[in-house]
Amino acid sequence: MENIEYQEGRTELAALGKFALIDRLTSGFTPKQKSTAKGVGDDCAVLGSGKTKTLVTTSTLVEGVTFDMMYTPLRHLGYKAVAVSLSNIAAMNGTPRQVLVSLAVSNRYSVEALEEIYAGIRLCCDRYDVDLIGGDTTSTRAGMVINVTAIGEVESSRICYRSGAGLHDLICVSGDLGSAYSGLLILERERLTYQANPNAQPDLAGYDYVLERFLKPEPRLDIVQLLREKEVIPTAMIDVSDGLASELLHICKQSHCGCDVYEERIPIDYQTTRVCSEMSKNLLPVSNALNGGKDYELLFTVKTDDYEKLKDCEAIHIIGHITDGAPVMVTPQNTTIELRGQGWTPQQ
Amino acid sequence: MENIEYQEGRTELAALGKFALIDRLTSGFTPKQKSTAKGVGDDCAVLGSGKTKTLVTTSTLVEGVTFDMMYTPLRHLGYKAVAVSLSNIAAMNGTPRQVLVSLAVSNRYSVEALEEIYAGIRLCCDRYDVDLIGGDTTSTRAGMVINVTAIGEVESSRICYRSGAGLHDLICVSGDLGSAYSGLLILERERLTYQANPNAQPDLAGYDYVLERFLKPEPRLDIVQLLREKEVIPTAMIDVSDGLASELLHICKQSHCGCDVYEERIPIDYQTTRVCSEMSKNLLPVSNALNGGKDYELLFTVKTDDYEKLKDCEAIHIIGHITDGAPVMVTPQNTTIELRGQGWTPQQ
Repeated sequence: MENIEYQEGRTELAALGKFALIDRLTSGFTPKQKSTAKGVGDDCAVLGSGKTKTLVTTSTLVEGVTFDMMYTPLRHLGYKAVAVSLSNIAAMNGTPRQVLVSLAVSNRYSVEALEEIYAGIRLCCDRYDVDLIGGDTTSTRAGMVINVTAIGEVESSRICYRSGAGLHDLICVSGDLGSAYSGLLILERERLTYQANPNAQPDLAGYDYVLERFLKPEPRLDIVQLLREKEVIPTAMIDVSDGLASELLHICKQSHCGCDVYEERIPIDYQTTRVCSEMSKNLLPVSNALNGGKDYELLFTVKTDDYEKLKDCEAIHIIGHITDGAPVMVTPQNTTIELRGQGWTPQQ
Repeated sequence: MENIEYQEGRTELAALGKFALIDRLTSGFTPKQKSTAKGVGDDCAVLGSGKTKTLVTTSTLVEGVTFDMMYTPLRHLGYKAVAVSLSNIAAMNGTPRQVLVSLAVSNRYSVEALEEIYAGIRLCCDRYDVDLIGGDTTSTRAGMVINVTAIGEVESSRICYRSGAGLHDLICVSGDLGSAYSGLLILERERLTYQANPNAQPDLAGYDYVLERFLKPEPRLDIVQLLREKEVIPTAMIDVSDGLASELLHICKQSHCGCDVYEERIPIDYQTTRVCSEMSKNLLPVSNALNGGKDYELLFTVKTDDYEKLKDCEAIHIIGHITDGAPVMVTPQNTTIELRGQGWTPQQ
């Protein structure tokens, strides 16, 4: 009979942080199968040796940690669980084909509740032309965990790793950043109001964009398509799940480079700015963009030669370039701030 | 703000049961991608259109439901999480190549505890020559959930679905049945003893086989290899995760047939018999075999012509044949008992 809580020499998970933990747990696992082209360490694993590679990725949503049932419509939850996995396929410049969904739920949930979740799963599968091909259904003592494995494909010549950024490459990001986290801030504010006074009506008017960004994100497969049409292959790519700063650091670390990103170029929606000003005078919109995460936009680098092809794309913003220095943000006052990956640890 | 617990017209999950629930949730998901050869409904999904197909499967272990931390060594847990997924690849007559491991854990666990789990994962990966290629690490508010997605391959000509059993085919099973559940019974007995008196020493001597069967099952990839050497391709195959009765019903339902299995032919280890006699005079070893589950043996059907090739294989037992009647067990007294899939719902 073991007691896992009172070990000698115990290292707390929080002491290490997510990325150092994953590094520590997976170090020493060296791929041996010839069909493994890329193992742990990017948005997807890459399989196969032919002209078309298979991409595989898995993501988990956990009740009380990555979602709060209090303000998460079940249909949105199902949609988001799939969307988050498809975003990882997009981050490799790929096209998703199949998903497997594993649901672990307590008996607090009814069959009808699970049907709502599956209605959302189906909506996302239909929208992105993806097959649900399997999964697992188990019970928990409490709470819900949804795991989605997504499978996709990409031509070998178009595949984008985090490690390919080269000196002077332009740094691009799709859509806008910080809005998902702003949506979460609004939802958390209304949750506290509701808990203090259950008769209070939630005040969500005027926040529709940031709320949808948090509750029902879209994988940017349209950007993958746009890049194809523009005949641009990014040199490196990642999706923004932990915040711009964290993702830039991943690219810089794996590409052995630094970056200059310009604060005023970071795309921020006016609702994000509004939420920040309402919440606290100390909450800067750029902080939400750098550290909020869960935007599921694509962050990528392209060769300077591709500038002309992308400069007029509304959905794509060029925010800086790759350097041989440190990863920094340059303010409008021309000072530099070192980027730190604070990541995203909601409700913990 | 939603309240999911007090819906009108609520159907409890328990009212439906696992298989009916999965049917209900996944009905209407029709594969559209040409790369999807088989979607939901077998041990694995099948992808690809060439001579070699890709197999994908996912399995979840949940603390307090499928394992109890009180008596589950962490290393065994990691091993088992992988083994259970590999068993699904074996059930399609395939060879596993890669796994992705998603771990959701509370901060009750230390880094060292997770390293123990990964040591078990690694042991199983090394033993079966499988690459760990990805995963996800998230936190939970309480408890642990481990999800493993396994990827494998199989020549199209050798693939085994549940649906291929034909009239008069012989029904075979590997190893022995009911031992994993017998191991669980012992562990549960010792847990109760320990809870009543924490100074009591667990009495596990003489139960090593059944304990290992529960705590550290092996996927029967050796049987997949043996079938290849004997040049036998089963007409249908499934792994025994929910108990012999449940698996026979899956094959019969999907192959549109019945079966006669002979009670005295069902392979049962002497330790299983001993545990049953110690536990209760009413607990028959054959009940553990039929309804215990978690043995991860392979249940398969072969053409009668293959009898000669298999009759001397020690690891394979021919326990009956496919009929056009009902799925039944024939007792030594020559009475027939209709098979019912009671499945496995531990600690619930």
